[in-house]
Amino acid sequence: MTGPVLPSHGRARPLGLAQVSLTGGFWGDRQTVNATATLAHCESWMERLGWLANFDRVADGTTGPDRPGWSFSDSEVYKLLEALAWEAARTGDPGAEAAIKRLTARVARAQDPDGYINTCFGHGDQPPRYSDLEMGHELYNTGHLLQAAVARLRTSGEDDLVRVARRAADHVCRTFGPGGRAGICGHPEIEVGLAELGRALGEERYVEQARLFLDRRGRGTLRDIPLGRAYFQDDIPVREADVWRGHAVRALYLTAAAVDVAVERGDDELLDAVRRQWERSVARRTYITGGMGSRHQDEGFGEDWELPPDRAYCETCAGVASIMVSWRLLLAIGDPRYADLIERTLYNVIATSPGPDGRAFFYANPLHQRTPGKAADPDEVSPRAEGGTRAAWFDVSCCPTNVARTLASLHGYLATTDDDGLQIHQYAPCEIRAELPDGRPVAVDVETGYPESGTVRLRIAADAPRPWTLTLRVPAWAAGATLTEDGRTRQAAPGLVRVHRAFRAGEIVTLDLPVEPRFTWPDPRIDAVRGCVAVERGPEVLCAESRDLPDPAALDALVIDTRSAPRAGNGAVLVRALVPGHPGRDWPYLPDPAPPAGDAGWIDLPLRPYHSWARRGPAGMRVWLPASAPRARGE
Amino acid sequence: MTGPVLPSHGRARPLGLAQVSLTGGFWGDRQTVNATATLAHCESWMERLGWLANFDRVADGTTGPDRPGWSFSDSEVYKLLEALAWEAARTGDPGAEAAIKRLTARVARAQDPDGYINTCFGHGDQPPRYSDLEMGHELYNTGHLLQAAVARLRTSGEDDLVRVARRAADHVCRTFGPGGRAGICGHPEIEVGLAELGRALGEERYVEQARLFLDRRGRGTLRDIPLGRAYFQDDIPVREADVWRGHAVRALYLTAAAVDVAVERGDDELLDAVRRQWERSVARRTYITGGMGSRHQDEGFGEDWELPPDRAYCETCAGVASIMVSWRLLLAIGDPRYADLIERTLYNVIATSPGPDGRAFFYANPLHQRTPGKAADPDEVSPRAEGGTRAAWFDVSCCPTNVARTLASLHGYLATTDDDGLQIHQYAPCEIRAELPDGRPVAVDVETGYPESGTVRLRIAADAPRPWTLTLRVPAWAAGATLTEDGRTRQAAPGLVRVHRAFRAGEIVTLDLPVEPRFTWPDPRIDAVRGCVAVERGPEVLCAESRDLPDPAALDALVIDTRSAPRAGNGAVLVRALVPGHPGRDWPYLPDPAPPAGDAGWIDLPLRPYHSWARRGPAGMRVWLPASAPRARGE
Repeated sequence: MTGPVLPSHGRARPLGLAQVSLTGGFWGDRQTVNATATLAHCESWMERLGWLANFDRVADGTTGPDRPGWSFSDSEVYKLLEALAWEAARTGDPGAEAAIKRLTARVARAQDPDGYINTCFGHGDQPPRYSDLEMGHELYNTGHLLQAAVARLRTSGEDDLVRVARRAADHVCRTFGPGGRAGICGHPEIEVGLAELGRALGEERYVEQARLFLDRRGRGTLRDIPLGRAYFQDDIPVREADVWRGHAVRALYLTAAAVDVAVERGDDELLDAVRRQWERSVARRTYITGGMGSRHQDEGFGEDWELPPDRAYCETCAGVASIMVSWRLLLAIGDPRYADLIERTLYNVIATSPGPDGRAFFYANPLHQRTPGKAADPDEVSPRAEGGTRAAWFDVSCCPTNVARTLASLHGYLATTDDDGLQIHQYAPCEIRAELPDGRPVAVDVETGYPESGTVRLRIAADAPRPWTLTLRVPAWAAGATLTEDGRTRQAAPGLVRVHRAFRAGEIVTLDLPVEPRFTWPDPRIDAVRGCVAVERGPEVLCAESRDLPDPAALDALVIDTRSAPRAGNGAVLVRALVPGHPGRDWPYLPDPAPPAGDAGWIDLPLRPYHSWARRGPAGMRVWLPASAPRARGE
Repeated sequence: MTGPVLPSHGRARPLGLAQVSLTGGFWGDRQTVNATATLAHCESWMERLGWLANFDRVADGTTGPDRPGWSFSDSEVYKLLEALAWEAARTGDPGAEAAIKRLTARVARAQDPDGYINTCFGHGDQPPRYSDLEMGHELYNTGHLLQAAVARLRTSGEDDLVRVARRAADHVCRTFGPGGRAGICGHPEIEVGLAELGRALGEERYVEQARLFLDRRGRGTLRDIPLGRAYFQDDIPVREADVWRGHAVRALYLTAAAVDVAVERGDDELLDAVRRQWERSVARRTYITGGMGSRHQDEGFGEDWELPPDRAYCETCAGVASIMVSWRLLLAIGDPRYADLIERTLYNVIATSPGPDGRAFFYANPLHQRTPGKAADPDEVSPRAEGGTRAAWFDVSCCPTNVARTLASLHGYLATTDDDGLQIHQYAPCEIRAELPDGRPVAVDVETGYPESGTVRLRIAADAPRPWTLTLRVPAWAAGATLTEDGRTRQAAPGLVRVHRAFRAGEIVTLDLPVEPRFTWPDPRIDAVRGCVAVERGPEVLCAESRDLPDPAALDALVIDTRSAPRAGNGAVLVRALVPGHPGRDWPYLPDPAPPAGDAGWIDLPLRPYHSWARRGPAGMRVWLPASAPRARGE
């Protein structure tokens, strides 16, 4: 039973999903809420809105152009199927298994005899198949169907869903293969679906079709649109681009597929191109939360250094897609910085989206909310990605199902093996029971209160008569970490720390990560947060909420004393803050800088994890806090 | 011959357009370019794109749903007609007069027998009349027709254009009047058109219809849209709102009409509401350029303090609309701050849009361009409002004709009279020949090289045996201004300075405004420009362009020494700037602020007027410059 992403080779191999399980803690709890609340929540909304009935109407011949939902609503059903497949395998929950069969039956009935499957095109008075490759999302939907089938194949074997996907993939290859129509889809996804299904089924043709779609892209293959061809990455071929641009989810799904194809084809040039794009995009186009996408207008990347906190889009789905990319690069290349970014994105984007009950979600994840949003009605579809509260469902509701499939398979992202041992990338209470190709057992129980606590105890669970290497990631932020093994404690610098030994069962290796809260300063080229500081604690970015201030408007004006270190207190992290008064002004641009605030009172401002913001209700919020002593350049 | 906006009462009366003329200088030159290049340029593009032929096709019964242009393209023809009317009156140019007749004839033929006129609805297979009040722009188009007719009426008298407009206004009153359909238009404009046409024709009904439209708005009269009802100001009634929000041009056209109706109806509550909205919006939602609109997504206002320089939208049309509002408030209330904002907007938005040849325009006016745009092809329609170069024409091409009508009537905004004298609000070389209600002649020639020079000489051109009051605006930025009259020089504090005398012809009053370049600091609550400083000179905002830097990438990194005052040099304003090197970093959020740059070299960075940016070709640009010594609060 294997998990998402299974390259045929690379620096590290993912664990099978039966080889690792979360045993509670930060992520285990979220995985449980996902299983017990979110999956049913998603199915129920899609039933209510008719997105599921769209399949029935195709089967019954009663559909038409006015079907409910956007052209990509089919994909939500497929993403839910993917989530259910991981979940059914994780727990053996018969409810999940029943839901898969129920949904698969409805989907399967809607497939045309030639394998085409889509509820928005090609039936009754609907527009003809593939008549709007730019915005119609047909191949995008199919790509998600293929990913759902991959999840089923890897956890349960060939079933009706896999057969539907196989016929759909064959149809795509016939239609768009060599000699066929030289088109691509405006929203990448078919590429990663084909590459993964090809790997899962051993169908070389599917990987080759993914390569073909990739190579056609970036050459003006699609019609231009007002937002420009960069919106769907049809401006520059993927192997020539040096940075991510345009619609963030599109850019990242495409990149995930590029890694898959590069690895399967041994195409180092393509892999290098992706690596280069990752480097520049992470160094210049990524938020401190790991969030990607600076613009609401096109849900897209901004230019280098364009990272406004208030208008940050940071779509939850872009976080999912970013993890898809970095996980693939980690498997291919092994650089722990990919796992660093995965961790950052997990704690500050993925964990932020769902509310505690798993029935409301953030779509966009701004780093600054100026005015409290209005509490969303849990019975209403939210029309917009904006607003400071989580919503039950969206008009464009890609994020809930994307969070669901990620959480249901999250244990698959914790660790990998290679020929010589086990690499632990993410710290969470879990059990790992794997073996190396030569049969050496690698069995570890991870015990930790991370990220609240920085102590990670790795209890060896099986004797290993022959030595193997336990490799641990020390996050880039964790300067001062230590490793204790066999009674000795040593420094563990950020990067990778290795223990090579013949381990005995019961033996404990302890990694101590410094999770004291710390100030973090932005590169001075990020104009939008100049003179500000953020506070982080371990992998968590913290934030201030207006409800913790004596006057909510003070969120606009507060100033942090950066000479006093942040400290724990009252269940939060406290920083010293001044809330200066501002004189009424009729014009905000003046001959002198604002005068020092004098001896106005200082307060202890509590900061809490960004992922928990608005859990206490609508509030203003900010991650970047104006600093009392921003050190200036050139002084 | 009167000009745009003629209230029946108020604190000041506009001059008639025959009473004042520009005699060269900054604005006189632009008015000439507008007359000799822009007007024909606009007509030629609208002919080429079929926007004019749309009228012919309605008349011929050959139109249909697939006509070229957006639903608001008719309004461009009307705005051009308005510009031509002002221009024909200004110079008596027979070419302008002929163009008016030519365009009027084509427009008139398209009017339906009942007065309805629109090329996008109600003919052939087009959607029915008023079937999309939210986004169809039918009444918006009509509003601009009415404004064109007002220009014609006030400068030439009743003609075919006025008759077309009268029939159209009657149709609107029949359809949407008391007892008719209780609708409003998604884009305000009909209100201001009706109010002005009502004043110009003495038709009380039209003003009343404008009031009715205003009162219906803000009550959820329109269907909701994904951007929300604030987009078209149907969220809060105008007299209850306390700030401008949503689409900026819509908000401001609506507000202009609110002032007209308030003044005509003596509705002080409504006038106070507008005054309150102006105060807060100017103090918290306006750029240093006077530009309005912080968001690309909805071309709209952001929240208080949300003023990103790079993603500033600052649509040129919002600048035009802002002047419409402030001019009306100036006439009604007399506060010189309205004229301050008009001046700022004229020099930094209106003057920025057209290129020197009057055949290319900025649509959006950001305050920071990170990467040089691509030079626009003068033969191509620009699809987007983005990009760092002026374009010949746009897919949505509202700005060129809006600039044209503003420049053609600009002399009307220089001065006013009241019962006791003349008020000069804007300084430009001009001749003023007016008389007061009791017959006292007020005749002044203004001689000045403003804004390059701060010396404004006002030469009295007619003996006045009885005293009258010459009132001069001292801009808010002009601390240290002096007034010299009758051999005596005195301080003239920002605000209004008055000279009350029996003037003799030939006598000179000199206002000296300090136009040395100066640093200007933002309110600390404007997060996006924290730690930055701008340089202004007189009414002009200055900017740096990447082409003036040794390395264009230095624009991202430079730092200004604010301890050295900006000074003139090499035809520009020079500031001391450091271009620090930045170490390559793989993650831009670090435990320490960027270290001081050491003794890396300082350069003299030339700054030039923002309105001239990109005239030398595509370039990176920034108005707000990181400051070496931003003084911090709380120190």
